[in-house]
Amino acid sequence: MRYTLLSGGKRIRPVLCIAACELVGGLDYAALPAACAVEMVHAMSLIHDDLPCIDNDDLRRGKPTCHKVFGENVAILAGDALQARAFEHVAASTKNVCPTRVVRAIVELAKSMAAEGVAGGQVMDVSSEGLSSEEGLERVELIHLHKSAALLEGAVVLGAIMGGGSDEEVERLRMFGRCVGLMGQVVDDILDVTQSTEKLRKTAGKDLVAGKLTYPKVLGVDKSKEIARKLVEDSKEILVGFDTPKVAPLFAVTNYIAGKIN
Amino acid sequence: MRYTLLSGGKRIRPVLCIAACELVGGLDYAALPAACAVEMVHAMSLIHDDLPCIDNDDLRRGKPTCHKVFGENVAILAGDALQARAFEHVAASTKNVCPTRVVRAIVELAKSMAAEGVAGGQVMDVSSEGLSSEEGLERVELIHLHKSAALLEGAVVLGAIMGGGSDEEVERLRMFGRCVGLMGQVVDDILDVTQSTEKLRKTAGKDLVAGKLTYPKVLGVDKSKEIARKLVEDSKEILVGFDTPKVAPLFAVTNYIAGKIN
Repeated sequence: MRYTLLSGGKRIRPVLCIAACELVGGLDYAALPAACAVEMVHAMSLIHDDLPCIDNDDLRRGKPTCHKVFGENVAILAGDALQARAFEHVAASTKNVCPTRVVRAIVELAKSMAAEGVAGGQVMDVSSEGLSSEEGLERVELIHLHKSAALLEGAVVLGAIMGGGSDEEVERLRMFGRCVGLMGQVVDDILDVTQSTEKLRKTAGKDLVAGKLTYPKVLGVDKSKEIARKLVEDSKEILVGFDTPKVAPLFAVTNYIAGKIN
Repeated sequence: MRYTLLSGGKRIRPVLCIAACELVGGLDYAALPAACAVEMVHAMSLIHDDLPCIDNDDLRRGKPTCHKVFGENVAILAGDALQARAFEHVAASTKNVCPTRVVRAIVELAKSMAAEGVAGGQVMDVSSEGLSSEEGLERVELIHLHKSAALLEGAVVLGAIMGGGSDEEVERLRMFGRCVGLMGQVVDDILDVTQSTEKLRKTAGKDLVAGKLTYPKVLGVDKSKEIARKLVEDSKEILVGFDTPKVAPLFAVTNYIAGKIN
């Protein structure tokens, strides 16, 4: 559990969770357990995705993957325990937030991980391997919205709930999170075909080898870059009207992700 | 998810959850989502335990195991989604229970599944394979308390919390759940060496083949039966003083489990 959770990573989801909390007027500490929980379930999804029977990856963040170090059995169980610990952490450690909001945040976290979230997206992904690019954009978008965007959306929504955001603020931030999450996956798809393993600190070209349905496969690299840029614009558009200094960290993360393909 | 969750099973945990709720004066519907959630995480633990790299079982409740039907990748992801759905269900569907109690129940459910619960117990179990019986009773008990008793304890505790039980009632029911959970695993260990695959509806003799540390391995079948009977007595002792008609379903489950080895 510690090996993967504490192996670095950019902490994009917790950063966005806390920034969303502050954007709606909350104090950072209100969203801190939620931010940690989101990172825990993210780590859990990485551990399980890297397993031989799923994406079969040996390298993650420049280190051997969890199952390479501890064995497949322990990796599966570490993932299971991390997911449970995430829910425990939000429920047990969130302070000074009305319990109704904590319960609501738990519903959102769970949805982002279940059949309509990360796990469902992974099932679509593994069952799309070998499909031709004619299967099209709609299916790639569907996979990415579940597999990747759902948890980033969840991170932002959890922050907004813990920060005391209104329903309208929560829904706007949900759309923002969805855009950024989708954009992040488009960028990942592009980097998989354009960068080296060394630079990625994970195995490059894996999607092509696995016959995954990706944006570059369906649309080519140039059109994929255009889509990523459009998603950046859309995400910023959604937050127009929010307090400018407080929106800055959310835009900074968006720009950081988008900057990788420039 | 549906294949394993709805494949029968005795529903012992949900029954105990609802009985505990009623014992402390709650109405059954208050504990219904919690009872379903406990069964969902139980099904999830079965799916993952049966995987080739863990207990490698082909048969469960008289049917092929989840990964035999859907593949290992989908089985792992179905388990992950079931765990998330369980938390979502308690949080989203519990009605007329104070949110503070719902949050407390979620903490208990999570603990029963995490490193100090089912997942931790499974790790101890897989790392104890091949250990000699001299490793002793203490280690078997430790494994069983985590791997099996934790979730049954959780079921009873969740019911007591949702039913509005006092702290003292919750703690007494926790001890009851722990006793019954431990007893259930001792009985399972005994049946694994004394019954046929047909009668068990799962592969018999698996523990012996895998070199698992079990009660019969450490103490022999007769002494294991004695321990099971002692645990039945202890569990009943714990509930002395509770309302007799409302205790009846809890005792009925205890007697049912114990009856399998008579």
